[in-house]
Amino acid sequence: MRIDVLTLFPEMFHGVFGASILGKAKEKGIVSLNAVNFRDYANNKHNTVDDYPYGGGGGMVLKPEPLFAAVEDLMPEGGERPRVILLCPQGEPYTQKKAEELSASRHLVFVCGHYEGYDERIRQHLVTDEISLGDYVLTGGELPAMVMIDSIVRLLPGVLGNETSAVTDSFSTGLLEHPHYTRPAVFRDWAVPEVLMSGHHANVEVWRRQQSILRTLERRPELLNAAELTKKERQWLDEQIRIREQNKEADD
Amino acid sequence: MRIDVLTLFPEMFHGVFGASILGKAKEKGIVSLNAVNFRDYANNKHNTVDDYPYGGGGGMVLKPEPLFAAVEDLMPEGGERPRVILLCPQGEPYTQKKAEELSASRHLVFVCGHYEGYDERIRQHLVTDEISLGDYVLTGGELPAMVMIDSIVRLLPGVLGNETSAVTDSFSTGLLEHPHYTRPAVFRDWAVPEVLMSGHHANVEVWRRQQSILRTLERRPELLNAAELTKKERQWLDEQIRIREQNKEADD
Repeated sequence: MRIDVLTLFPEMFHGVFGASILGKAKEKGIVSLNAVNFRDYANNKHNTVDDYPYGGGGGMVLKPEPLFAAVEDLMPEGGERPRVILLCPQGEPYTQKKAEELSASRHLVFVCGHYEGYDERIRQHLVTDEISLGDYVLTGGELPAMVMIDSIVRLLPGVLGNETSAVTDSFSTGLLEHPHYTRPAVFRDWAVPEVLMSGHHANVEVWRRQQSILRTLERRPELLNAAELTKKERQWLDEQIRIREQNKEADD
Repeated sequence: MRIDVLTLFPEMFHGVFGASILGKAKEKGIVSLNAVNFRDYANNKHNTVDDYPYGGGGGMVLKPEPLFAAVEDLMPEGGERPRVILLCPQGEPYTQKKAEELSASRHLVFVCGHYEGYDERIRQHLVTDEISLGDYVLTGGELPAMVMIDSIVRLLPGVLGNETSAVTDSFSTGLLEHPHYTRPAVFRDWAVPEVLMSGHHANVEVWRRQQSILRTLERRPELLNAAELTKKERQWLDEQIRIREQNKEADD
């Protein structure tokens, strides 16, 4: 896969593109990662990439020419158009499903603005996907682009070893993960639960599933509707909910 | 404000902490940003920070000692305990409200794991906030920590100039932003809407509000319930919804 990032701050990407999973995927030749300063495509005397908005008002607006020129320059001759992804608060909320969809592409281009707005013609005629990471305000698209790139590249075949792909699988059950414990058995008076030290694998499995279900119930109950539970687990969950409601009534 | 990040990959932060808004806030002395390798606190021969899980199973688990030791070392003597933030898929979904809450703290510590799980005693006795950026799988907590730090630091007094704080304000109306246009007036046959070239400010304002409302209706209709609309704008919105439904029926 080829990934190009159009940004006015390419130096932000150096530490991230070289480290950990992204660095390894690059070394193995599975992905090429490229941060491009689109100011290099500002075909004017002062290398201007933004200008005042038509109709007045505060803030600057990114001009269409440099971004169109950059994307067209990055396209292989006669090749298919890349997916061009704009990071912005108006975009579709990012999900794991979208990461999976994008991981099937051959060429992704991320467009990162930085406080400026985008000329609407960039959205209408250049960009294929507008994406928002969440409902919080950020200074630019660079950090969300890094997050998306990490989530996409780790899905490419050959990037993750077995030890890490297990982590992904635990997510796909639709439940939050159960608690983990490692040595020491007692740390500052806080002991590891006995069942985990028992060597009884079936009991460990039951305990972990129940802890997963309980944690999901406490923190993200809306996930339980779609979670894969056995009939027995559903009954146990209903029992837990009943106990909680009784305790709550007793407290009131 | 003081921000420390505990990570096994401190080099990932160098490009980001030096650039743009974060770099400027640091230079102005508004925030200190510090990436600390918690392997330096692994008080054992092989600098081990993780170990096998009790109860068996795949994956490694971060041990409690190095993280407790690191946080305690970073606390000023006799000072208040910092907010200790764990980035993990089981955490509370991140929002602008949370960013505002955290921006009032004097000392934040971010704990970034990297594929490993966390010993549960870290969550129970060290961490004050567990946060998730969204329902997608990432390799580690480093990129989400950067996103959170950007969203928090830009809220600190003196960090943003007037030209950028305007962008934040536009979010607080509860509507998505209206389209922006800048020069050239015609780019590849695509012209700027006439109203924006008219010089008639009242008409520009009406057009922009209507475009904001329409874009929110198309992309994030759930935001409209809480949005601040005048009575006239509500009527106009109802009219638009009616027109859309009629068009849809005609298409069927």
